[in-house]
Formats: sequence, C-alpha cells, structure tokens
Amino acid sequence: MMKIHKPTLLLNTARAIRNIERMIEKARKSRVRFRPHFKTHQSGIVGDWFRQRGVGCITVSSLDMAWYFAQYGWKDILVAFPVNVLEIEKINALAADIHLHLLVESLETVFFLEEHLTEFGQAHIWIKIDTGYHRTGLEWHHFDHIIELARHISQAERLHFQGILTHSGQTYHARSKGEIQAMHTEAVSSMRAVQGQLGAEGFEQVEISIGDTPSCSVVNNLSEVDEIRPGNFVFYDVMQFMIGACAEEDIAVAVACPVVAKHVERSELVIYGGAVHLSKERASITLEQGQETAMYGYLASPILKHDEGLEPEGWGNFLEQTYVSRISQEHGIITTTEDILRQVNIGDVVLVVPVHSCLTANLLRKYVTLEGEIIPLGAFT
Amino acid sequence: MMKIHKPTLLLNTARAIRNIERMIEKARKSRVRFRPHFKTHQSGIVGDWFRQRGVGCITVSSLDMAWYFAQYGWKDILVAFPVNVLEIEKINALAADIHLHLLVESLETVFFLEEHLTEFGQAHIWIKIDTGYHRTGLEWHHFDHIIELARHISQAERLHFQGILTHSGQTYHARSKGEIQAMHTEAVSSMRAVQGQLGAEGFEQVEISIGDTPSCSVVNNLSEVDEIRPGNFVFYDVMQFMIGACAEEDIAVAVACPVVAKHVERSELVIYGGAVHLSKERASITLEQGQETAMYGYLASPILKHDEGLEPEGWGNFLEQTYVSRISQEHGIITTTEDILRQVNIGDVVLVVPVHSCLTANLLRKYVTLEGEIIPLGAFT
Repeated sequence: MMKIHKPTLLLNTARAIRNIERMIEKARKSRVRFRPHFKTHQSGIVGDWFRQRGVGCITVSSLDMAWYFAQYGWKDILVAFPVNVLEIEKINALAADIHLHLLVESLETVFFLEEHLTEFGQAHIWIKIDTGYHRTGLEWHHFDHIIELARHISQAERLHFQGILTHSGQTYHARSKGEIQAMHTEAVSSMRAVQGQLGAEGFEQVEISIGDTPSCSVVNNLSEVDEIRPGNFVFYDVMQFMIGACAEEDIAVAVACPVVAKHVERSELVIYGGAVHLSKERASITLEQGQETAMYGYLASPILKHDEGLEPEGWGNFLEQTYVSRISQEHGIITTTEDILRQVNIGDVVLVVPVHSCLTANLLRKYVTLEGEIIPLGAFT
Repeated sequence: MMKIHKPTLLLNTARAIRNIERMIEKARKSRVRFRPHFKTHQSGIVGDWFRQRGVGCITVSSLDMAWYFAQYGWKDILVAFPVNVLEIEKINALAADIHLHLLVESLETVFFLEEHLTEFGQAHIWIKIDTGYHRTGLEWHHFDHIIELARHISQAERLHFQGILTHSGQTYHARSKGEIQAMHTEAVSSMRAVQGQLGAEGFEQVEISIGDTPSCSVVNNLSEVDEIRPGNFVFYDVMQFMIGACAEEDIAVAVACPVVAKHVERSELVIYGGAVHLSKERASITLEQGQETAMYGYLASPILKHDEGLEPEGWGNFLEQTYVSRISQEHGIITTTEDILRQVNIGDVVLVVPVHSCLTANLLRKYVTLEGEIIPLGAFT
C-alpha cells in the first residue's frame, strides 16, 4: 500500500493499457496506420507498452523528443511540428538513422531542407493543412499554394512527399459526440478535397493523416484516412471527459496532493499541489446556481486518511461539487461541500484528476504506478 | 555572440543584480530583515548573488527546495507554505541542521509538530494571517483564534513563536502604484492590529513578515514591518509590469523562440515556444479597438535574423501591438502588425517576455546568460 508524502503523479497502468489496446483495435478495424503521439506520456517505458502490442511508428512534437525515442529503438518517427530550421543538425543526424517524417507549410522551409539535408539522409515530408483550427498550416481550400508546395517537395532529391496532415484541434471546443463527429466529417472531407486536387495534378498515393484524440476516440470508422496520430487518449483527462471523448473510468492519471489547510467558513481546502504540479490549464464549468467558473481539476474518490496509503485499485469517480477553483505556484484551493469538508483533515491526501494530462505529466517528470513502480519521463531540455 | 536553436531562457544578469541590490538597499533603509523568496529563481548560483551582498536568510516554498538550498550552505530558511505534516521526516532532518522557520494556521498542525518534532531540532513558527487575499491563513480580525494558536505554540517545547506572516497577493490585482500603496497600507494596518492584540495578551516581540513583490517594489518606506520576503522582483515579468511594480527595463528574463511559420493573411507568426516553455499563465490586455483579450507574453526588440546571434546587450523594449495570443503544448501564436510581419522570416528568433517568470523558469530548468553561461535550476521533483 503506497504512502504519499507530496504531490505525486499516479498512473493507473491497467487503464492506460486498456486505452492503448482499444485504439490499436480501432485502427486495425478501420485499416489505418496507427502512429500514436508520444508527447503526452514522454516516456520510453510507456512507449514500450505500444511496441509490445505491435505499434511500429510514432509521432513526437520536437526533435529532442524524436532523439530520445530513437535511443529507445524507434525507427519511424514523425515530428508533428513545423520544421524548426535552426535545428538542422539534429534533423540530419536523425535522418541518417531512422525514417524521419517532417512537417512543412512553406516554400522557404522546403528550399532550406533541400539545401541543407546531407547526403546521408532522406526525409518523408507531409504538408500541414489547416482544416479549421487556425493554429498553423495552409488553408485547405488554398489549392494552388498546396500544389505548388507539393511540386517543389517532389522535385527535391532528398525529400519524399508522403502526404497531407491536419490536426483538427477545433474538436476541443466540442461538447458532445455528435459535435465531434460533425467536425471530423468536415475535416476529412476538406482533406479529401485536397487529395483530389493533388491527384488531378498527378500526385498519386498522397496519404491523409489526422491527429486529434476526440475524433479518434469517438468516431467509429476512421477508414477514410490513412493514418491517425492521437496522443492524449493514453491517459485522457478532465478536458477530454468534458468534450465527451472519454468516460471518467478511462482517465489513467491523477495527482495525489496532501491537504495542508481547511477553511470551513468558505468550504475550501488548501492542498500542496499548484501550478508547478497541475499546470495553469483550466476548463470552464457551470455551477449549480448557473454561473460559469474556471476550474483546474476535479477531485476523485477516495480521500485518503493521514495514515492510509493508496489502495491498488487507485481512484474512483469524481466527488460531487468538488474541484480545484484557484491555483498559484504551489497552492491549490479546493472548493467543496460542507459534507466532504467535515470528513477531511490536515494531512489527508486528495486525488486530483488534471484538466490537461500532457501538461501535468510534463511538469511532474515521473509517474508512480498504483503498484508503486516509478516510471520516468525523458529529459529533453 | 550566442546562437539560439530552440526555446531558451535568457537571463540578463546585470538587470537581475540591479534588482537584487535595489531591494537590499530598500530593506536596509527601512531597517527591515530581507528574507528573499527563492522560489522564483530556484538556483543555487543565483542564490549566491544574494549571499555575496550580505543576505543571510531566505524563503522557499517547499521542504524539497529548503533541502536544496541547505545543501548550498543556507542556514536560515523559512518555508512559506502551510506545514505539510506528511513530510515530517524532512522537517526533522532540516530542523536538526538549520534555523528552520515554518508556517502554521491550525491547532491540528501545532499539535502534530509538538508531538513529532524530534529532540534534535527546534522550529521557528509563524502564524499565517489572511489580510484579504483569501488564499489561506487565519483571517486577521479573528483575534481569538490567532491568540489561541499563539498560546499553544508558545507552550510547545520545541516550537519558538516568531511572529505573524502574510502574503498580500491582492496586490496582483492592482493596476497602479497608488492602488498597491493603498493595499499595502491596509494589510500592514491589519497586521499591526493583530500584533497589538497579541501584545495585550502578553506576547512580546511578535514580528511582522510581509511578502509580495508589488508592495516591496513600490512602497518606499517598509519600516512598519520587521521582515520582507519578495521573490519575483529578481526577474520581474509582464504581470509585474502591468501592475506597475517594475519598468520594462527591469525585466531580467526572456525566452528566445524560433519562428517556424508565418500567416500573413491574419498577421500571425507561429513560434517554437508553447505551454511547456512559457506556461499557461495569462494576462488580460485591452486592444486598440477596445476589447479585452488574453495574452501569454510580449515580444521585445530585436527580432534576430536567421544567421544572427544574440548581442550581449540582450533585448530592449516591447514591440508595438505584438504579443503571444494563443498557446498550445509547443506552439505559440504571435499576433503582430503587418509592418513587423514583413520583416520576419522562418528561422528568425523572437524574444518573448513571459507573463509569469517564476512558472517559466520552473519549466525551462536552466538559464542562459547573455554571456552564454548556463545556470541550472535545482532538481526538486
């Protein structure tokens, strides 16, 4: 029975593996390539859980992360971030060693790669398409720009034009499965229009890669694309739960936090667990009285009494009307009910389900499984 | 001339040292003890800059951070966070070795310490007072509770009652020097009322400790308190600038971020620099058209061209109408003017002044000085 002393990132291994196996099965049924995004867990050990189940290619969000996973034996890695030309030395080192997939969206970058990729390597190039999220990428209906870019990629000796890629981050604004499905259908239809235009210009076998966890979790049949790159699904979190992309019992991480103060008159607890543990990612919830408020995590049952350790079954469902309502560097303020407040004492430990598991894992740099095993994240900075 | 390849936390050493010396001088003139908070910089090397200038006691926000600085030779450390009773072993180890100052706000915690502090150590105890921030602490006008707590502390063999402590975090909502001054005056008057009530009950030499950077920066005469504990002032940031606690040229950190994409049609740049570098801390600004928007950092001049390195003078003033408008894990979106956009190319490097330097430093884990020296933060997790 594991004892908690300070903010600790708990990992329910069984849930994570169930999430992995479910997504592998969905990709298999849809006959699409599964290239999971490893920026969520950032761990060679968690990565091995995928490999042991037949996954052979992955997505990462930086060249440093690609380097780390290449050391763990991954040979086919997509860096799903617009090429940072200032890291050309890392690109060359990786391209010489693995199947390196890169993302471009400008001629400048294509010309740069053509000029600076060394003779030892070749890179698979994807064009980043914006299907409505408006973070980055070429707008899907700017066919001329896309075709021009594809032409230059195809003409470059060391670049292999692989396909078109999008991240439909707009699904993060959805609040139901129906909304996610509709956004996904629209994004795929835009991508197929691009594929069609490229086909008419003689570009064949242009693959389509999509990425977001909400679509990949909710849409049953993904066979209209060639590749999926979800990442967050391995753990899920409060955000995914609110979107409708997962159930409470799918969430595989929680942060155990000691209670350090009680404020009965305003129904609040103070925990050791703040922005340096949970991150400042927030979600908006509607209170019983109707007003909207920001929150930084839900509390899940049980509340561990001072001398109790964590049971191997981990945590259960969210506690009613109980959430992290304010946060500073190390302090978290929990707003809760009088009833729950009465049961809690200083030195008890609460289990906070984070709003955004990727950022929480990135901050805490290690997982502790319910069995007490420590799993480090890679050291990238 | 230093070259940047990826998000890099730059430290202007001259500015940081000027900030340190200015605060030392203010404390000296006001005849108050200066116990700087080290949670902002988290670095043994930066800590030495204080020690070399005569500072002998410090504040930290966790027992792990206290342990780290004790290894760096600090012998008088206040942990400005309500005691986490689950870390009693660390408390005992520290109390045996240094002058350890702890924060309490409940009888439960006092009884716990009394029972569990070992014979080798003694702890200096401060009562946490809430003067209006409502994060934690006993409300200042609940004199009966405060007196009861003081009585129990005084009766405990290994606890030494040192004084009352507050963090007037409400000054973070101020937007002018006048507002900060008024909030400070009110907080100090509340603290002196508590001190008076304790005095009437026979508690003598009860010290008053205050903490927030806005008050300590703006108020000229701090002599009504016994101790000040500002931390953020060593670097300052956009938040402090907006509050009115510092000038642009006092801010001592910036994050150098490569430009990876340009979106001319919406006057945006995409940088390699996101929530895992800057944090999701945001501030609200008013645009020219009058509406409010969230921002995650300002850009400062110059923009470094691809093959240019950073000059030793570092960065200058904020660029007009240019700020980080959206942020995800590794992506930052810069909203800027057409004029600036025209001058920027992919592979250039922009200098982002963070909203909250403490959280940015905590994420990036090392500083690079303008002279190219690397200064690590401590490893606490």
